[in-house]
Amino acid sequence: MPLGRKLRYGMVGGGPGAFIGAVHRRAAAFDGLAELTAGAFSIVPEESHQTGRELLLDPNRVYDTFEEMVEREAALPPEERLDFVSIVTPNFVHFPVAKAFIEHGFHIVCEKPMTVTLEDAEALCRMAAERGVVFGLTHTYTGYPMVKQARALVQAGALGEIRKVLVEYTQGWLATRLEETGSLQAEWRTDPAKAGAGAIGDIGSHAENLARYVSGLELEQLYADVSTMVPGRRIDDDASMLLRYAGGARGALTCSQVLVGEENNLRLRVFGTRGALDWSHGDPNRLTVRYADRPEETYLRGNPYLAPAARHASRLPSGHPEGYLGAFASLYGNIVRTIAARAAGEAPDPLDLDFPTAQDGARGVHFIHAALRAGREERWVDASYTPPGA
Amino acid sequence: MPLGRKLRYGMVGGGPGAFIGAVHRRAAAFDGLAELTAGAFSIVPEESHQTGRELLLDPNRVYDTFEEMVEREAALPPEERLDFVSIVTPNFVHFPVAKAFIEHGFHIVCEKPMTVTLEDAEALCRMAAERGVVFGLTHTYTGYPMVKQARALVQAGALGEIRKVLVEYTQGWLATRLEETGSLQAEWRTDPAKAGAGAIGDIGSHAENLARYVSGLELEQLYADVSTMVPGRRIDDDASMLLRYAGGARGALTCSQVLVGEENNLRLRVFGTRGALDWSHGDPNRLTVRYADRPEETYLRGNPYLAPAARHASRLPSGHPEGYLGAFASLYGNIVRTIAARAAGEAPDPLDLDFPTAQDGARGVHFIHAALRAGREERWVDASYTPPGA
Amino acid sequence: MPLGRKLRYGMVGGGPGAFIGAVHRRAAAFDGLAELTAGAFSIVPEESHQTGRELLLDPNRVYDTFEEMVEREAALPPEERLDFVSIVTPNFVHFPVAKAFIEHGFHIVCEKPMTVTLEDAEALCRMAAERGVVFGLTHTYTGYPMVKQARALVQAGALGEIRKVLVEYTQGWLATRLEETGSLQAEWRTDPAKAGAGAIGDIGSHAENLARYVSGLELEQLYADVSTMVPGRRIDDDASMLLRYAGGARGALTCSQVLVGEENNLRLRVFGTRGALDWSHGDPNRLTVRYADRPEETYLRGNPYLAPAARHASRLPSGHPEGYLGAFASLYGNIVRTIAARAAGEAPDPLDLDFPTAQDGARGVHFIHAALRAGREERWVDASYTPPGA
Amino acid sequence: MPLGRKLRYGMVGGGPGAFIGAVHRRAAAFDGLAELTAGAFSIVPEESHQTGRELLLDPNRVYDTFEEMVEREAALPPEERLDFVSIVTPNFVHFPVAKAFIEHGFHIVCEKPMTVTLEDAEALCRMAAERGVVFGLTHTYTGYPMVKQARALVQAGALGEIRKVLVEYTQGWLATRLEETGSLQAEWRTDPAKAGAGAIGDIGSHAENLARYVSGLELEQLYADVSTMVPGRRIDDDASMLLRYAGGARGALTCSQVLVGEENNLRLRVFGTRGALDWSHGDPNRLTVRYADRPEETYLRGNPYLAPAARHASRLPSGHPEGYLGAFASLYGNIVRTIAARAAGEAPDPLDLDFPTAQDGARGVHFIHAALRAGREERWVDASYTPPGA
Repeated sequence: MPLGRKLRYGMVGGGPGAFIGAVHRRAAAFDGLAELTAGAFSIVPEESHQTGRELLLDPNRVYDTFEEMVEREAALPPEERLDFVSIVTPNFVHFPVAKAFIEHGFHIVCEKPMTVTLEDAEALCRMAAERGVVFGLTHTYTGYPMVKQARALVQAGALGEIRKVLVEYTQGWLATRLEETGSLQAEWRTDPAKAGAGAIGDIGSHAENLARYVSGLELEQLYADVSTMVPGRRIDDDASMLLRYAGGARGALTCSQVLVGEENNLRLRVFGTRGALDWSHGDPNRLTVRYADRPEETYLRGNPYLAPAARHASRLPSGHPEGYLGAFASLYGNIVRTIAARAAGEAPDPLDLDFPTAQDGARGVHFIHAALRAGREERWVDASYTPPGA
Repeated sequence: MPLGRKLRYGMVGGGPGAFIGAVHRRAAAFDGLAELTAGAFSIVPEESHQTGRELLLDPNRVYDTFEEMVEREAALPPEERLDFVSIVTPNFVHFPVAKAFIEHGFHIVCEKPMTVTLEDAEALCRMAAERGVVFGLTHTYTGYPMVKQARALVQAGALGEIRKVLVEYTQGWLATRLEETGSLQAEWRTDPAKAGAGAIGDIGSHAENLARYVSGLELEQLYADVSTMVPGRRIDDDASMLLRYAGGARGALTCSQVLVGEENNLRLRVFGTRGALDWSHGDPNRLTVRYADRPEETYLRGNPYLAPAARHASRLPSGHPEGYLGAFASLYGNIVRTIAARAAGEAPDPLDLDFPTAQDGARGVHFIHAALRAGREERWVDASYTPPGA
Repeated sequence: MPLGRKLRYGMVGGGPGAFIGAVHRRAAAFDGLAELTAGAFSIVPEESHQTGRELLLDPNRVYDTFEEMVEREAALPPEERLDFVSIVTPNFVHFPVAKAFIEHGFHIVCEKPMTVTLEDAEALCRMAAERGVVFGLTHTYTGYPMVKQARALVQAGALGEIRKVLVEYTQGWLATRLEETGSLQAEWRTDPAKAGAGAIGDIGSHAENLARYVSGLELEQLYADVSTMVPGRRIDDDASMLLRYAGGARGALTCSQVLVGEENNLRLRVFGTRGALDWSHGDPNRLTVRYADRPEETYLRGNPYLAPAARHASRLPSGHPEGYLGAFASLYGNIVRTIAARAAGEAPDPLDLDFPTAQDGARGVHFIHAALRAGREERWVDASYTPPGA
Repeated sequence: MPLGRKLRYGMVGGGPGAFIGAVHRRAAAFDGLAELTAGAFSIVPEESHQTGRELLLDPNRVYDTFEEMVEREAALPPEERLDFVSIVTPNFVHFPVAKAFIEHGFHIVCEKPMTVTLEDAEALCRMAAERGVVFGLTHTYTGYPMVKQARALVQAGALGEIRKVLVEYTQGWLATRLEETGSLQAEWRTDPAKAGAGAIGDIGSHAENLARYVSGLELEQLYADVSTMVPGRRIDDDASMLLRYAGGARGALTCSQVLVGEENNLRLRVFGTRGALDWSHGDPNRLTVRYADRPEETYLRGNPYLAPAARHASRLPSGHPEGYLGAFASLYGNIVRTIAARAAGEAPDPLDLDFPTAQDGARGVHFIHAALRAGREERWVDASYTPPGA
């Protein structure tokens, strides 16, 4: 760590009933790189303070609102000032919070999907560039070492020219109308005003990001069959899509939150003219590669034969499974070290620059809207997109 | 076996270079139910006779052409007469052969897809009904015990109301232009005149049949992205489809013959409101069933707790793997026993009636044309269909 | 097939309630190489004839006893004479039957364990050599293509020098006192007089044979903990053993028939100084090979990169699973083609000579006795052994 | 957390080149329960200080030696005093360090095997009891939620009476003479003076602990074949054992560090009269349970149907894999919360008391010596043992 100290960060969101806030906190602590120092954890001030107490924070740095937080934190002297802010609120709040903190020059870690509207996403791209802040988007799955190995194999040409991408992210937790039972998680994720989109935004965007990250392909056209399977729900909860990539490759994507028994089953397969790869979140420490003319190969995390990016993202010897929090921590690690390098006036390690950015966020928002539009209009829609600053 | 003897059957196709002919012969012999007695194995007369010699057949019952075969075999006395004919030629020959033999009252086992045109398929449905012949279509995968278990679970309501069907059949053997290298198998399967359709006909039709067999759902609408991935090929070799079923369930289907490293990977997942099932051809003796609220269950072939249809299709104790030939033999067994019962003037065992029929063949041909049309016209097409006699 | 006809074979054992007789009949028919022509299927004459009728045999060649069978069949003219006899009785009957048929020059296919006593086993080795008969022993698992691939890899030095062998064969079907419930299978297999040994003889001998076949190692010393887990049972039903091989390799073997939920789980792992292999009967079409310094490799049945012996034992394209009957048929195929070559006065194809022999049978019987002795005497026993004619 | 603050802990060991020290630090930080405050990280003072700097510790609390550390830390006022000390040195140092800190009343977290000699182990048991300190031993694998579920199923009688235990822990990292290449890890682990025992101590003790934890069975007798496979090595690197448990159950255990391609493959299977369970470290979020008469069941981490101990050890929703660090953190969490409760004068939550103790450490040391003795003397040795205070 260039700075010789842990980075200080604040959190917006992550109060009682939240899931992902605790994940961010563990990810930040995982490798001892950053320390939670301030927060506005809930729109209910008392809940914000309760969370602050549970997290043993200095009460002076726990706030009623993010507006209060940004104002007061921006006024602190450099030696107390936060290095970055993690935004883990429901989707519709990402934009105003990110905007406010970027304006004061704080670096940002932000949950996906980045914003509800493409306009907002593009605004964040521009603002981050103008203010020179680091913007990291938590598409967690790209933090897995074997996902990075997959990308490295594609980049090295091991698969030849890519022909087909099959990706799916399936869950079952919304198979019933959970949002009517008091589940905060289900409530905001199925509220169009708060989430923007349902399954497509929440997990379809992960699938799209993963496919792009590994394959390096740019979407060109997209067709979607978008459903709301659970009666009474107001948002999409299931979709299957057909994908056409620049260069001629094709793909298919399924995302669903209503498939009983599915538990966060993200799987990506990429097929090329010479080889194919297969990665599954259920068995994340392995990556299977198939060829036409020789035995199937399985790359295993933690081995010296892996690509530098895969080794960089790994912290345990082979055979000791790393999981979701490890991937999240790898992502955080890259973002935090990049922020620290910037703060120290140094050039970041290129291996650390391997994390999703505001541009990836805008690409994700564009994808979500394209998918919803394709489903609504029952036609192929243009899915090609270049975000500001890309 | 009602007749107290093996059934006699003839074969059309299955000469040198063929794959599926030998599979049919093994399937027929597997349980000792039928004996190959006659054949026209190739359009090259000398090859037909060569195969006859290799199979140790009586030379008098090996023919230059199927026309000769039908004429001469039809004239034999009952005690020598064939009970049925297996048609294992390239697709475009199925119709004339089936027609000729049905006209003389022979029962039929026929490869899929049943015909090239829907008109021909419907004609066979009607002819078979008129002549009272048993018509069995070899959608092999429905012969697997655990596929039958899957169907039984759906029928018993274990999954609740079905919401989503995900099915795929992927291969890689046509990832290069194999048809230019002298492969007979590749040659006719990629010749539009001989095959009718490519991947959609050859394996997409299996996927569709399997999904229908297990889920019991009727397709209503279909959208397809159909590709020819290998430059210079004249037929579809890759497709992904979106499916809409009567009653509101949705689905996605991928079939491809150009995905390097894939080896006959047929997988079916069916998701309902209460449970879901998952069967894969790579591990066919297992069937996984998932529920929202209790541990995952895996049904294993050969166990007393299985449904009657699953036990009926199985011949080995649990733990001794049964494979593709076992499934094929189960299919043949049901067809042959049904033919024998008919010949003996008895009612077939209901468990034996569980095999694909001419009506399933017509459904398959309708599906193939619907998929090709959807791909061509880039629109949802009507995929609902009731074949004659259904 | 050198002879231009199917071989004729007779069967001793395999009547009502038998399991393995039907497996042998399927295996013999699988590739169309041999035809069941005669039999003495049961010690109950009426059951023998009933089975003969069910199998549609000529009643003149179905016998009350094997003694009658050998006498009458030996007197038939060459064009009707059996080429070989398959012995599928309970263990204690193998010897007298084999002896009687070998004396008349019939080739033999015999179930394992070959005999109850080592003396008998050695007598069969000598008699078969003296009479020049082919003697094939059905250690089924060596018929699997991927087991042959495993052996080929060891022979090619891919694993380096072998250090450790871990093998286990576990079942659960005798977890309760099934022999008291009328199960014929359980009855004779748990009767010391009929079976000779229990789990060690029935499946431990398979494990030992498989380990030796693949590793090429000779056992030197053996230690065993032998149990009878089910109260009241009169024979071993569970054992774990420690193995020491010539050259210094070590091993461990577990065989058990009382492990609830186990279904014929034979697994072999062989570890060398450079690599290791892992094969499991539950997934028999795959063979995993691991190295210290590169990705895990999985060899898949049916691929051109496999060793000749593995390709020779396989009959379906990759991806169409072959199972237990395929392995059994591969074994039978090799034996039958070897018999046919001998009958035709030709040298057998070296690939066909790859099957277990009487010498392997004697090795198995020696192993069984060594294991029982080690268990009884609680000491390392000498397990090295060279059978007559080896 | 009863104390309303993070616990303060010190570390002995864990300097440059160490592996497990960093694991302990991550485990302690994982759930935000404890904070590293002091340390003597290496016997090389400069390395100790270097590690202290890297960990951003107060230089005043980084020591040259553990003796200095215990003396100075013991003198600090309560509000600065360490709550516990983590001992992560090579094995032979555990005892003097633990002794010294226990004498001053510090709670202890200690790596396994607890000591080199049984005498020392028993002394620690007594001292910990006398001084009233909490002593947690890091048999990591018992921290996995699905291992806890396994134990709960056994305790609930789901398996019936246990008959057989099969456990193995296999690695390949010492397949060559790595200790000659400068690897610190390899060096001390293969030095009899520093490690006490080799594979048996390092991983065999984990296997034994896991089997005991889940099965609840007490070892009675043990037989072992102990090897040193790598020429020139001075310590055991491979062993297979036969186990006899009180009550009549049998078992087999293999531990090895020279099996090429193995990567920390700990697998436990427990078979009872009614059911059996199967857990593998390579897929730790699943637990398979088999019964005689119904489908196989797979319990998945994170689900509401799990036992309280399994849920208590888990922190992510189902489908987000938890790995080795999660298990380690669960272990730490229980220990730390127990220490905190004691410090607060409260009774610990019974769920928190579920961690390995000094008594478990003594049991492990007894096991190690019994195994080495059995191997040396080639006889069954008495493995029953009751540690002081158990």
